[in-house]
Amino acid sequence: HEASMSSWVEYAADTDFPIQNIPFGVFQTGPADAPRCATAIGDFVVDLAALQAAGCFNGPVLKGSSCFSETSLNAFMAMGRPAWREARETLQKLFSAAEPALRDNAELRAKAVLPKASVTMVLPARIGDYTDFYASREHATNVGKLFRPDGNPLLPNWLHLPVGYHGRSSSVVVTGTPLRRPRGQTKADDAPAPSFTACRLLDFELEMGFFVGPGNALGDPITIGEAENHIFGMVLLNDWSARDLQKWEYVPLGPFGAKNFGSTISPWVVTMDALEEFRVDGPAQVDPAPLPYLANKKPCAYNVSLEVAIQTPTSPEPHVVTRSNLRYMYWSLTQMLTHHSITGCNMQPGDLLGTGTISGPEEGSYGSLLEITWRGTKPISFPSGDERKFIQDNDIVHMRGFCQGNGYRIGFGECVGQILPAHPLERI
Amino acid sequence: HEASMSSWVEYAADTDFPIQNIPFGVFQTGPADAPRCATAIGDFVVDLAALQAAGCFNGPVLKGSSCFSETSLNAFMAMGRPAWREARETLQKLFSAAEPALRDNAELRAKAVLPKASVTMVLPARIGDYTDFYASREHATNVGKLFRPDGNPLLPNWLHLPVGYHGRSSSVVVTGTPLRRPRGQTKADDAPAPSFTACRLLDFELEMGFFVGPGNALGDPITIGEAENHIFGMVLLNDWSARDLQKWEYVPLGPFGAKNFGSTISPWVVTMDALEEFRVDGPAQVDPAPLPYLANKKPCAYNVSLEVAIQTPTSPEPHVVTRSNLRYMYWSLTQMLTHHSITGCNMQPGDLLGTGTISGPEEGSYGSLLEITWRGTKPISFPSGDERKFIQDNDIVHMRGFCQGNGYRIGFGECVGQILPAHPLERI
Ligand SMILES: [Ca+2]
Ligand SMILES: [Ca+2]
Ligand SMILES: [Mg+2]
Ligand SMILES: [Mg+2]
Ligand code: NI
Repeated sequence: HEASMSSWVEYAADTDFPIQNIPFGVFQTGPADAPRCATAIGDFVVDLAALQAAGCFNGPVLKGSSCFSETSLNAFMAMGRPAWREARETLQKLFSAAEPALRDNAELRAKAVLPKASVTMVLPARIGDYTDFYASREHATNVGKLFRPDGNPLLPNWLHLPVGYHGRSSSVVVTGTPLRRPRGQTKADDAPAPSFTACRLLDFELEMGFFVGPGNALGDPITIGEAENHIFGMVLLNDWSARDLQKWEYVPLGPFGAKNFGSTISPWVVTMDALEEFRVDGPAQVDPAPLPYLANKKPCAYNVSLEVAIQTPTSPEPHVVTRSNLRYMYWSLTQMLTHHSITGCNMQPGDLLGTGTISGPEEGSYGSLLEITWRGTKPISFPSGDERKFIQDNDIVHMRGFCQGNGYRIGFGECVGQILPAHPLERI
Repeated sequence: HEASMSSWVEYAADTDFPIQNIPFGVFQTGPADAPRCATAIGDFVVDLAALQAAGCFNGPVLKGSSCFSETSLNAFMAMGRPAWREARETLQKLFSAAEPALRDNAELRAKAVLPKASVTMVLPARIGDYTDFYASREHATNVGKLFRPDGNPLLPNWLHLPVGYHGRSSSVVVTGTPLRRPRGQTKADDAPAPSFTACRLLDFELEMGFFVGPGNALGDPITIGEAENHIFGMVLLNDWSARDLQKWEYVPLGPFGAKNFGSTISPWVVTMDALEEFRVDGPAQVDPAPLPYLANKKPCAYNVSLEVAIQTPTSPEPHVVTRSNLRYMYWSLTQMLTHHSITGCNMQPGDLLGTGTISGPEEGSYGSLLEITWRGTKPISFPSGDERKFIQDNDIVHMRGFCQGNGYRIGFGECVGQILPAHPLERI
């Protein structure tokens, strides 16, 4: 039935936001204006606080709630899947071609249905904690070869648990936020001591992130069977990485400054309900099979096409540098969430979990420049003649993602970020 | 002048909270009651919201503010050192022996000066992000010997930068909160595969934590010269650690589940102003000298005596298992904060930074059971006959800390936590 839905809102056939999608986000109309919750349809941003105030959400779960007047989606995320489903179905009905309630209410439409150019998207949630995993086998293998050329590229624990690390939540930013090239310590293999420099090996990491819905009490893990009801939806995630800082600092406690200068996400959270029909089998987990606490009972991967394009000051047309797919991930979202909480760690509504870099099996599908250029040994050539080993000042990285349905796309919008030059040393 | 201060509040000579201290915390009188800010003097908790409402804070910085009615200290932390100093001086004057304003106002005293047994302390701040460092040279050396017996115990980067990792903020709990023994994956060296078990090697880590006051904008580091004005104060921190989980999971991205099941802090934040007269030289940093961005211009260690005692079900009297001192830390608080933000990472009011385990040079001064029992090879004997290699179910770990002044102590109160048995497997 999804394919047959049509809307009175006009949009292009390849829009990221057809009536089948109904993502959730937060916007404001100006810096002094209180942020409020929204959905997207075609090129419009729809003010859900206005619709809620007008009584449009009168199903059994949302009736009486003012969750969409909050400045973040945290309260809505905390309400759980029945609320998310009811909201999405209510909106699909409201936007459907034959439904006059909003279509023929010019006053409410003027108030609630806003051209996207008239609003600014902000972070969809207050992110209490951000965790990044490392769940693509191809990525972990490539990085192992590059960082530890003398050892087994895949470490002994990797096939037994989704390896992850706690990240920095304060520096997660929404698409469009420029980031400054970080400074830090690097040490050349043949140098006697480290030096303090601007990062020379700045990279993107093509990832997706998912937001936690209802959390768990400290001490009470989320089981693998329960996990999907705790996952609200997904965004694109660029986990910017300073490879030279990372190489020097990461032993033995993991990446730190190399990752904490900024992580960029797309503004619209696409719900797991919208992704449901793109659920597919992930890579087989048979040798070894996961321990029972991590054993999924059904397919838990999703077929999401991903691509990264780079725009340089002298190549203003974004040039696609890789195409990958979420389905390549070895570990599923449910396995990441369960493993994260299995110690009793309390997950909270609005927590963000990143998948780790999503690399596919072939060269054209690697998810970072480290892999694409094989640590700079195979530079990328641009049609303009530009070459890139790593990100240079003022380059802009664009990430896109979508699921191809039958006659429509479930898209994620854009995750875009520009790297500004490092501050001059006098400022530090 | 500090030594000569005396108060109309009666307290023991060795109280943690004489008039010279004036720590800040947050309390409630019942679970339905809104938390509000407080200080401690002797055995009393003083409601600062009540004092503020009564007009007691009328200095140039705090006049008109209602910062102490907030449910956390974040707003007060954000106001910066002039506000912290003015508040502390105002309270020292209000409590001083010759000052009648509060002493002789029975009504306000009854409202604001509460016996500590009548209130419950809660977390002093909304902790946006929690980071843990690894700044004791003796600890890093001991752990290196135990975890990497074949290599150089101190890794090449350790003397050049304060190694740290992002921790889990959601599971930071206040003293008195019981924690459940975590489950997770462990693998014996000779086992072919990991198993899913309750942690067998549960440890404490004797640390201190410090709270960030005013933060920095993303992209703009806090310089070493500015750092001390961004540090509000300190607490005791028990960074509980599951050593068997840690050993299996920590390569290559650092500790994760081994650390995220709970970290316990003491409830009272002792300000850097109260600690100022205990400032001392830290370990010499000469070979190598730190890079200029990390070079302190003055002594930046603090002489804080620390001890840990364990209470077992059959040894109800807490038995001291180690005595250490904050001054052993190789890296200073200012160096940790500057290094954390040097990439541009934005620090926020209420962020918590842990020092890492504070081990001294001698055996009796090690800050974890891993080191004290040398990975279980030298069990601790209790006067009762109990033995411990690691923490057993229902054990209670007590941490204390204080600075010895001339005739008074600046104390930190208690950081106490009990480990409950793991959930039975059926519950997971
Ligand atoms: Ca990042
Ligand atoms: Ca911990
Ligand atoms: Mg990553
Ligand atoms: Mg620690
Ligand atoms: Ni956080």
